[in-house]
Amino acid sequence: MKTSLDCIPCFIRQTLDAARLISTEPSEHKKIMREIISFIGNMDLDRPPPVLGQAIHRRIREITCVEDPYCEVKEYQNHMALSLFPMLKAEIDASSDPLMTAVRLTIAGNILSMTASGNVTESDVHNAIKQGLTEHSYMQEAEFRRAIAEAETILYLADNAGEIIFDRLLIEQLLRARLTVAVRGSPIINDATVKDAYAAGLSEFVEIIENGSDAPGIILEDCSQAFNRRFADADLIISKGQGNFETLNHGQRNIFFLFKVKCPVIATHVGMPVGTHILRQQSSG
Amino acid sequence: MKTSLDCIPCFIRQTLDAARLISTEPSEHKKIMREIISFIGNMDLDRPPPVLGQAIHRRIREITCVEDPYCEVKEYQNHMALSLFPMLKAEIDASSDPLMTAVRLTIAGNILSMTASGNVTESDVHNAIKQGLTEHSYMQEAEFRRAIAEAETILYLADNAGEIIFDRLLIEQLLRARLTVAVRGSPIINDATVKDAYAAGLSEFVEIIENGSDAPGIILEDCSQAFNRRFADADLIISKGQGNFETLNHGQRNIFFLFKVKCPVIATHVGMPVGTHILRQQSSG
Repeated sequence: MKTSLDCIPCFIRQTLDAARLISTEPSEHKKIMREIISFIGNMDLDRPPPVLGQAIHRRIREITCVEDPYCEVKEYQNHMALSLFPMLKAEIDASSDPLMTAVRLTIAGNILSMTASGNVTESDVHNAIKQGLTEHSYMQEAEFRRAIAEAETILYLADNAGEIIFDRLLIEQLLRARLTVAVRGSPIINDATVKDAYAAGLSEFVEIIENGSDAPGIILEDCSQAFNRRFADADLIISKGQGNFETLNHGQRNIFFLFKVKCPVIATHVGMPVGTHILRQQSSG
Repeated sequence: MKTSLDCIPCFIRQTLDAARLISTEPSEHKKIMREIISFIGNMDLDRPPPVLGQAIHRRIREITCVEDPYCEVKEYQNHMALSLFPMLKAEIDASSDPLMTAVRLTIAGNILSMTASGNVTESDVHNAIKQGLTEHSYMQEAEFRRAIAEAETILYLADNAGEIIFDRLLIEQLLRARLTVAVRGSPIINDATVKDAYAAGLSEFVEIIENGSDAPGIILEDCSQAFNRRFADADLIISKGQGNFETLNHGQRNIFFLFKVKCPVIATHVGMPVGTHILRQQSSG
């Protein structure tokens, strides 16, 4: 999907968030903001939002020489999610439908994003969990059950740090297939990298691969050949989060998207209100 | 107060709102956005937000040759508020404390702003009214009662169209004093001008003056000499809305500010949460 003009205030807010993580110095914040505002004014809006996000955050890293502004944020989010993990796991074990309970909790974990609404507190996470388990959502459940029953290989595209610990809940339900988890090739915002996949304990039972890209979504031409091969060969792809949806929602593949609708632009695009928890098959696939 | 970097995403969102009011053509929206983003990147943030708002909206008017993008919005807001007026008036007449009920309803009317959260629906207004009458607010009531009892001349600084009809509720309680209502000198966002003061029926019982400025706040050096004289001579000034607060909150005058806290920047500044309804005396006055 193309970037909307409505995304621009969000990119700028996100730049300010990054600036404040990088430095406590207001003059440095101002410098970063001026630089990025001028950069954004000249960008090509016909590309998906993660393409612009990639360029903006590359530029922020370039001008500040800080390789991973979100390093501590990711550690905090992993820590927070790990502390919730036993409770979430017990919820699934006690459920009459462990698969769909895992789906719902995994989507709830998509709240752990820095892109749409800034910082996320533990109370936001608890609310998202409650919402995931009780409130209205859009779930193509039958299609998903069928797809996972048939798939011999599944490629799971992770989204954020912290959230990847929620992903583990669903991944543990899918181990009948040969499952691979793909993370970003290098740090971008608070997206999960290999380090976060290890923090989630995933390396103990699935293969973890990097996609070779620093975009907050899956831009196939920017990903490594090795990743592209895995992407082409997988029987089923499970794509987590809004960024991956924004870049993959026009493909021809057998993809299921799991995400929480986080902003009015995506709400309009999918025709469902902000906050909706979605499990949706690629419509063209 | 100085402009915060947090105000910038808001200025950009507001620019997009204006662009969409001016044209239905996406290429025109893009052109306006590019122009204003580059303009914002070079602004002096040491001035209060309404100084930047004034410059941004002047520039939008210049590049589009549209003198009042919010003309229809203001008519709609006046219409909506006028339809609520009899109900609000009955609420005050039935109240055991008409003055403070009028204060509360007048502050609730401050929801009719285009600056902080975009479009306002009738349901938002109803919620604000309910909140104004029932929920927590910060009211320097005793000080306000004393000030209005003592004042022989009151200058009432209006904020937005639509809202000015809510202002009438309080103005009608203050007619013991000689009361003058000041509006913007020319159109800026959806701020009230002379036309809106007439739509509110205020001309029937108070004097209406223009402040000579097109800023969405009171920048005294930008206002007319005539307005400055009235400002200097008034025994009491009642200042409505966040914009007027942002520009007048460091003066030495006998000013009471009435507004709804609409954004995190002001919430931090006043030390109260977003949404709080405030009646507050100038702390230095």
